Amino acid sequence: MKTTAEKELVYLRNDCLVIECEVNVIKETLEIDLPPSDLLDNLATLLEGKKGADVTFKVQGEVFPAHKNLLAMRSTVFDAEFYGPMADKGAQDITIDDMQPAVFKAFLHFIYTDSLPSMDDLEDDDKREMFKHLLVAADKYAMGRMKMICEGMLCKCLDVETVATILALADQHHGSNLKDACIEFMFSSNKMDDVIASQGYLHLKRSFPGLFVEMVERSVKSPKI
Amino acid sequence: MKTTAEKELVYLRNDCLVIECEVNVIKETLEIDLPPSDLLDNLATLLEGKKGADVTFKVQGEVFPAHKNLLAMRSTVFDAEFYGPMADKGAQDITIDDMQPAVFKAFLHFIYTDSLPSMDDLEDDDKREMFKHLLVAADKYAMGRMKMICEGMLCKCLDVETVATILALADQHHGSNLKDACIEFMFSSNKMDDVIASQGYLHLKRSFPGLFVEMVERSVKSPKI
Repeated sequence: MKTTAEKELVYLRNDCLVIECEVNVIKETLEIDLPPSDLLDNLATLLEGKKGADVTFKVQGEVFPAHKNLLAMRSTVFDAEFYGPMADKGAQDITIDDMQPAVFKAFLHFIYTDSLPSMDDLEDDDKREMFKHLLVAADKYAMGRMKMICEGMLCKCLDVETVATILALADQHHGSNLKDACIEFMFSSNKMDDVIASQGYLHLKRSFPGLFVEMVERSVKSPKI
Repeated sequence: MKTTAEKELVYLRNDCLVIECEVNVIKETLEIDLPPSDLLDNLATLLEGKKGADVTFKVQGEVFPAHKNLLAMRSTVFDAEFYGPMADKGAQDITIDDMQPAVFKAFLHFIYTDSLPSMDDLEDDDKREMFKHLLVAADKYAMGRMKMICEGMLCKCLDVETVATILALADQHHGSNLKDACIEFMFSSNKMDDVIASQGYLHLKRSFPGLFVEMVERSVKSPKI
């Protein structure tokens, strides 16, 4: 057996220092930098350029050409309208009476690109109004994800003045997430007096008495309320 | 002046311990979890479902219905074919002779969804062949990003046996990134003898003599070669 002193000398042989090296050869990968996906830009350009449009929406005097196949692939309501058993297969003019042109424009933008256009130029109140209208449109045309985006944006701007009106809207247009958020906001803000004093509250009380039953029952279940 | 001992007793007053607390009130944000974007799924479903298709490709016996507006928004070649001054506006049958059905199917998938279908079930050689064919298709239909993806995939599977053939292909179909990668691979691999012995090299030498001029000139400029 070797002694400890001898073991320590294992790298020193015949008066030479033995150095152990580990060499890693890094193979240079030949990679090509890809540009980002251009599909969404292509879809936005299709909407703007109107090429191949086969349906025209008339919204309070403004005209919006669009593509039936894209509308139908995004909304079961448009699908039934254009390809259902009652559909008129030819080119079509559709009049939209219940939406403002700016709202319809944003709605089309979402259908084509899955995102809403920038609203940075709008005041907070106008932005809230826009999201309220878009929520109604999303509900009408069965655009589930768009509705959830609108609900999320409205959640972020709840205040005591507007929460009652938004609760009524959420109830009418099946925005269950927004409804829950409104009720939670009303109780957790400790400002129920201000909510009761708001304009929307009177309308809520008169037109949506069923919601108050829901609120009371939730207040029993939830420890927060 | 207080002594150090007195200072140390600042939290002990009249035999009581004074505890300082900092309380942070975290306002609960009412956020709604959004489902992921469904636009790409919608586009894939549109391609599979063929609803509203207005053009049919016949590829070696297989039939592929598609949508002119989507093809044209993605490829300037289709755009000119369907909406250019020489376009036939009616429904159209288009025969594709120079592509295999499996390649055309993958090509359509990329047009609609900006991604290639999974090729996990293919052997390495078949995968390389697929990317070579898709590169040719991408070049023919001016699908720049798709061509770069194919170039990138071919870069990853370069070897001494195939590099000469792939260099010829890259040169023929304007894949400048792939061309650069092939030349770099040939010189940096130190296996130029094996490359010269490969089948593709003979073809390269006979049909693409201009490439050799390029190689020599690059070898002077680049310190690597």
